[in-house]
Amino acid sequence: MAKWVYGFGGGSAEGEADMRNLLGGKGANLAEMCNIGLPVPPGFSITTEVCTHYYDNDQKYPDTLKSQVETALADIEATVGMVFGDVDNPLLVSVRSGARVSMPGMMDTVLNLGLNDVTVAGLAAKSGDMRFAYDSYRRFIQMYGNVVLGVEHYYFEDLLENHKEDRGVTLDTELDADDLKQLVIAFKEKVEEELGSPFPEDPHEQLWGAIGAVFRSWRIPRAATYRSLNNIPEEWGTAVNVQAMVFGNMGDDCATGVAFTRDPSTGENAFYGEYLINAQGEDVVAGIRTPQHLTVYGKERNNSKAPSMEMVMPDIFAQLNDVRHKLEVHYRDMQDIEFTVQQGKLWMLQTRAGKRTTAAGLKIAVDMVEEGLIDKATAVGMIEPASLDQLLHPTLDPGANRNVIARGLPASPGAACGAVVFSADEAEKRAGQGDAVVLVRMETSPEDIHGMHAAKGVLTARGGMTSHAAVVARGMGRPCVAGAGELRIDYQEAAMYVRDLTVKSGDIITIDGSNGEIMLGEVATIEPELSSDFSVLMAWADEFRTLGVRTNAETAEEVRTALRFGADGIGLSRTEHMFFDGERIVAVREMIVASDEAGRRAALEKILPMQRDDFIELFRLMTGLPVTVRLLDPPLHEFLPKGDAEIAEVAKAAGVSIEEVRQRASRLEESNPMLGHRGCRLAITYPEICEMQARALFEAAITVTKETGTPVDLEVMVPLIVTKRELDILKAVIDEAADAVGSEQGVRPHYTVGTMIELPRACLMAGEIAETAEFFSFGTNDLTQTTFGVSRDDAATFMAHYEKSGIFEIDPFISLDQDGVGELVKIGAERGRAVRSKLKLGICGEHGGDPSSVAFCHRAGLNYVSCSPFRVPIARLAAAQAALADS
Amino acid sequence: MAKWVYGFGGGSAEGEADMRNLLGGKGANLAEMCNIGLPVPPGFSITTEVCTHYYDNDQKYPDTLKSQVETALADIEATVGMVFGDVDNPLLVSVRSGARVSMPGMMDTVLNLGLNDVTVAGLAAKSGDMRFAYDSYRRFIQMYGNVVLGVEHYYFEDLLENHKEDRGVTLDTELDADDLKQLVIAFKEKVEEELGSPFPEDPHEQLWGAIGAVFRSWRIPRAATYRSLNNIPEEWGTAVNVQAMVFGNMGDDCATGVAFTRDPSTGENAFYGEYLINAQGEDVVAGIRTPQHLTVYGKERNNSKAPSMEMVMPDIFAQLNDVRHKLEVHYRDMQDIEFTVQQGKLWMLQTRAGKRTTAAGLKIAVDMVEEGLIDKATAVGMIEPASLDQLLHPTLDPGANRNVIARGLPASPGAACGAVVFSADEAEKRAGQGDAVVLVRMETSPEDIHGMHAAKGVLTARGGMTSHAAVVARGMGRPCVAGAGELRIDYQEAAMYVRDLTVKSGDIITIDGSNGEIMLGEVATIEPELSSDFSVLMAWADEFRTLGVRTNAETAEEVRTALRFGADGIGLSRTEHMFFDGERIVAVREMIVASDEAGRRAALEKILPMQRDDFIELFRLMTGLPVTVRLLDPPLHEFLPKGDAEIAEVAKAAGVSIEEVRQRASRLEESNPMLGHRGCRLAITYPEICEMQARALFEAAITVTKETGTPVDLEVMVPLIVTKRELDILKAVIDEAADAVGSEQGVRPHYTVGTMIELPRACLMAGEIAETAEFFSFGTNDLTQTTFGVSRDDAATFMAHYEKSGIFEIDPFISLDQDGVGELVKIGAERGRAVRSKLKLGICGEHGGDPSSVAFCHRAGLNYVSCSPFRVPIARLAAAQAALADS
Repeated sequence: MAKWVYGFGGGSAEGEADMRNLLGGKGANLAEMCNIGLPVPPGFSITTEVCTHYYDNDQKYPDTLKSQVETALADIEATVGMVFGDVDNPLLVSVRSGARVSMPGMMDTVLNLGLNDVTVAGLAAKSGDMRFAYDSYRRFIQMYGNVVLGVEHYYFEDLLENHKEDRGVTLDTELDADDLKQLVIAFKEKVEEELGSPFPEDPHEQLWGAIGAVFRSWRIPRAATYRSLNNIPEEWGTAVNVQAMVFGNMGDDCATGVAFTRDPSTGENAFYGEYLINAQGEDVVAGIRTPQHLTVYGKERNNSKAPSMEMVMPDIFAQLNDVRHKLEVHYRDMQDIEFTVQQGKLWMLQTRAGKRTTAAGLKIAVDMVEEGLIDKATAVGMIEPASLDQLLHPTLDPGANRNVIARGLPASPGAACGAVVFSADEAEKRAGQGDAVVLVRMETSPEDIHGMHAAKGVLTARGGMTSHAAVVARGMGRPCVAGAGELRIDYQEAAMYVRDLTVKSGDIITIDGSNGEIMLGEVATIEPELSSDFSVLMAWADEFRTLGVRTNAETAEEVRTALRFGADGIGLSRTEHMFFDGERIVAVREMIVASDEAGRRAALEKILPMQRDDFIELFRLMTGLPVTVRLLDPPLHEFLPKGDAEIAEVAKAAGVSIEEVRQRASRLEESNPMLGHRGCRLAITYPEICEMQARALFEAAITVTKETGTPVDLEVMVPLIVTKRELDILKAVIDEAADAVGSEQGVRPHYTVGTMIELPRACLMAGEIAETAEFFSFGTNDLTQTTFGVSRDDAATFMAHYEKSGIFEIDPFISLDQDGVGELVKIGAERGRAVRSKLKLGICGEHGGDPSSVAFCHRAGLNYVSCSPFRVPIARLAAAQAALADS
Repeated sequence: MAKWVYGFGGGSAEGEADMRNLLGGKGANLAEMCNIGLPVPPGFSITTEVCTHYYDNDQKYPDTLKSQVETALADIEATVGMVFGDVDNPLLVSVRSGARVSMPGMMDTVLNLGLNDVTVAGLAAKSGDMRFAYDSYRRFIQMYGNVVLGVEHYYFEDLLENHKEDRGVTLDTELDADDLKQLVIAFKEKVEEELGSPFPEDPHEQLWGAIGAVFRSWRIPRAATYRSLNNIPEEWGTAVNVQAMVFGNMGDDCATGVAFTRDPSTGENAFYGEYLINAQGEDVVAGIRTPQHLTVYGKERNNSKAPSMEMVMPDIFAQLNDVRHKLEVHYRDMQDIEFTVQQGKLWMLQTRAGKRTTAAGLKIAVDMVEEGLIDKATAVGMIEPASLDQLLHPTLDPGANRNVIARGLPASPGAACGAVVFSADEAEKRAGQGDAVVLVRMETSPEDIHGMHAAKGVLTARGGMTSHAAVVARGMGRPCVAGAGELRIDYQEAAMYVRDLTVKSGDIITIDGSNGEIMLGEVATIEPELSSDFSVLMAWADEFRTLGVRTNAETAEEVRTALRFGADGIGLSRTEHMFFDGERIVAVREMIVASDEAGRRAALEKILPMQRDDFIELFRLMTGLPVTVRLLDPPLHEFLPKGDAEIAEVAKAAGVSIEEVRQRASRLEESNPMLGHRGCRLAITYPEICEMQARALFEAAITVTKETGTPVDLEVMVPLIVTKRELDILKAVIDEAADAVGSEQGVRPHYTVGTMIELPRACLMAGEIAETAEFFSFGTNDLTQTTFGVSRDDAATFMAHYEKSGIFEIDPFISLDQDGVGELVKIGAERGRAVRSKLKLGICGEHGGDPSSVAFCHRAGLNYVSCSPFRVPIARLAAAQAALADS
């Protein structure tokens, strides 16, 4: 018989940590904590397979589920000595979702389940606290009514607020047991009014309602958005965790808290957390009460006045600190834990790998290797390559003028600058228009995820370091300042107020997520300093990786950045970027408007020395490293003069009439320039351009080789090939230029000639092309465009829609489409290598800096990836992880 | 030992007709004629393998060639009783090229080889005609000097003209033996002056010089152009034919002529040819003297005054007529023959399959089946499918006003209209700019081929029905009027004169190649009448073909044309073509500028009845035949209003401001619309468009089904799919529309849903897509664009260059690139069928009407091709030939 339910508690469990695919992360870890002897309230997990079954079978459960749940519930009852639905000694349970990976706040939770008009009295009697019992009941109805029954939240809030007003009080805590009893009645009436049927009194009915709600919530839009942002397949499904309730809000010997086993911002090996006396867990996470620090160290470092748990509950703290060490040794990773203290007893409610800033992740990984907890390979595997991006982003220039208008908590590091927006939709909309925006909210909720993703940074007026805004922003790598209590935000007016200052929607602000500062206007930024942890870990990564990592760079600054970040060479230097510079663009335009070869040659003569000087600079910087230079690629019209002044300038330089320049320009117009007269097609029709570029390259290479004594490792790359013959023709032009330069200079340049494989036909014809080409560089940007028939420039109108509809799991321009484009890359690689076994293979599209694409390139047997300078570390780490996954 | 030389003559031969790959067409047929007992001057063929060897080995011959040539030469000497280089009885030979297929006039020929200062005397003595001997010698030096030694032709012409002037004569024939002797001396001096070495006197040196010239001429540019126009691989090479000379110019009992065994214009079973008394063969072909008709019938039909051969040389004519019958029975095809009569004896110099008009080809094929000469399959195989195009082109409206300014020979049927151009280069240039041009020349030569190809028609002032212009134009399917002697053409002035009328370059004329009329201005045309031969042969083709032939059509007229031409169904009906019509375009634009779904739906409501009516008309015409309708495909901006008036009209209809329409229009602009928001992407983002189209289709289908009692065979085609999910989403929309219409009308429409496979990714993902798609139609136009990364619209700037450089053998938009695009089609077909074995497969690109692409589709296992209405017969015939080739 299929096992759908796994119990845990009382010192043992049916599941364990590595069953997270079946039990979800939360369930697997609850079981594991039981197994290693930590105090966990007993419970059971309904597996993710039930979720899959539920959706595959028209929202029906497997036949045997009911009996297995009943058995597991009986086990809880036996362990805790309470009975579900019992009048005197009622067992209450929580029902929580738990997917394979953490989806913070995305899934709905129901607490205090099992309460009804009868059991509430038992709870009151047992706890000796009528107010507590009715507050629990009130919360349950509110939560269950909203989450399971779909009654809008604000109905309950309104009733609560009205009641407080009637009673002349402002805080929930000022309501007494009778108030709460009345509210329970009012809440239940409201539910019946809305639904036409009464609130369910039967605890079993409540339980099955909650279980169903968890499964259904797997497919609500905000969960779908989160999954699509995080590439979580829908078919994974969620588990359901049913667990005996423990209460942190039964008095002052109760508490609830969350903690990280190390500092998630810095990585420092210091216990880091927050707690609230006499509170339920949700109170901490929701950021409604500002929590207190766990440790004395934390309290002092943050200048907090509220006493730490270390001082208030030293015994419990000691137990908790012990748990912390046990968990780290057991999991060999920093953990994010939730706990509750019920009447002096510690209960662990959750453990999971803690989210952390990248800097913290690096420090933790490096420290743990030094502590002997993990080995280097594990350390390298612990860092999400894409997260390195956080470290590499500029921070605020400490010397720059800052008009600091307020301060909040430094919730997620890095600086962000942009126009203020007050809603997630607005953030998404303006970001879609290309604006940098900062999302400003009272507090954030799962509904805001898409806006947080779209924004450059997030600012909230409420909530702590573990609030939704803080956790999610850190995960996304968005700078975040949280809990800036000085801010008054008026959504209606679309403005926020700090003292007498008004900041309106659209005004520019800057936030510094590393120190919590909020500044009016834009503040200058500087390059990040990289920690020694970074260098250490990257050096380990380099020990493991077999894939080369080059960079796409042209300017000296880009090249220097890439070298600092550890690039092994240049994989793509686009010569046309050198064409736009000041004076030379006029010569380039002169060439374009020339009516014949002689005219073009005259203009090319002027360009030659400038190109040569560019290449000399490049080769000097890259001494000893390979440099792939791509010949002119874009359609000529991209260089055309725009506006009358430029047209006149070119006409004068070329000695032709303005009308002629205009006509030539209009003849060069193309309806689909991406598929037009560009790439090697330019060199085929105007070989003199290729000849000039080859000459400039070879003259530069010989000059620098003579200077440095080290031969320039030059790879001449011909773009947009679809046939061997194109390459043959152009290789002949290049070789001829080499011969000519060689005989002029008395030394022949060293070089290889290869091609970009960036069109589907080139992949298919790779065997023939490799007869001539000495290397291939897969241009996956263009290859994606043509394989999909989608122009990156024009995709914006439908790409979001395509991702939302699940047509594309992820934008194929961001992460290589391994099924389609990937198959073409593999075909190209195989056919090329079949003809020329030593064929050097690389990719030079944007994908070269995308971790999963890098892993693909590793598996496809490429020699290197090439990416933008700032993504070099990401690619290095991703390459190392791919190699480790392979070994 | 490898055999490089094959002898023939004296009633037998070492070769035979089916050795044309080795001996070339001419050589193989000379051998065959010997074998069947026809009178052929003895000779030998040097094989095409020698040509290949020559180019593969740095222009060196195989070692044993020399001795084999000597042996073969000795055989000729033995047969004719003459000796090569002998003083008294010199054997003279011709040296001619002969490739596997006929390349008329492309290869150089040398006659009278073996003459020198000594042997010329022997020839004079033997022929008893000093003038003849020196005229032969003079011609030899001229020909050899030019063709083999590379001395410019005009040097010899100048010397000849000067000499005539000195002697005060105007015709060559007025020069006597002494004149010619002096000219021989002058010619040889000129050769020595130009080359620095004397004209070769040694006949063997002459022979090897000529052989080398033939091989070298295989790669001269005009040969390369012809090959590239006719898809003849360079590696085939040419053979060399060395043959004993016979002379048609030794007196009035001599003659030379060319003939077709049936009329090459009409196909009539009548001997058809021309001859000249006392002339050399080149005189007839070059069109310098106007030749006489062979038969009385021919003479009378053409109102010729010059006597026919049938009357002048009745015995020889009877022999020739006998040869004609023998050849037809032997070759089972109409033959094009060359003959010479030397002093009363008939010699056959060549036979080959005769070029013919398509109408003639059809008549010959059908007649020969009726005559029992061939079977139906052979008849079907005899017609070049592409040539049917000639028949299908419009002819001049007999009722239209014609300003006939002159008449020439009806050299190639069909009418053409265009701007007059006087050079092949000009023709190519203006045609490249999209102009229709008529190439006007005194006479044409192989150098003009590219211009003839570019022109709509050809007009010459000189030359007969077998002149270069006539033969080549017929082969190409270009209308041609030849030998219009009234015309005076002045290349310098770029004008032609007819009496007092001047026609300048750029003026529009019309020519009718079917009756020889030349008209000023444009003349109205009408649809062609198709002969019963056409119907008979097409019916035979249909018996053999297994591939369906559908059409791409939307308008009633197109559909009717396609049905008349035998289409099996509609493979592609583009719904957007229906959007442009008068009033509906306003509603379409209203939809496009709508700011929300409600606005779009309102506009779509207006479009729905119009679309439905279109579909009703379509389905009525196509009763019982399958109809594939493609959902909206092009980017919306294609429908946008252009200019202020249209913008205002749309703004009014949509009830929005002009500024809003303008803004919406500018937002819809795309940098690469081909790769933009189009195809199914429109329907994914605006499902209501898909819904309206599906509803219009289903309502129309039910209406027509009720009317006719025959269910409409509707295939709904979703364009531009790259993932299965897109199709899933849209199939759901379509199915929902079908359900809705079904329940409204009480009967559910029959239909299938499939997709165009027109992007590389769709081919690769065909397996997944076929899980949903019930049929695939390969959109090879778009697939070619994306596989090559070439936009058809923008390719003009480099495509000609690409063909000329041999990068593309043929424009991949004209004939399917079987290596690249073809592999993707095969991958798509295989993967699709692997998942859904009955998957219906077709193609609907322009390639559907290209014979070699049709053959590819047959081999790839497709079910049908779909092409434009006028190409349906071509596709039917090509499909039949592909099936025959397969069996």
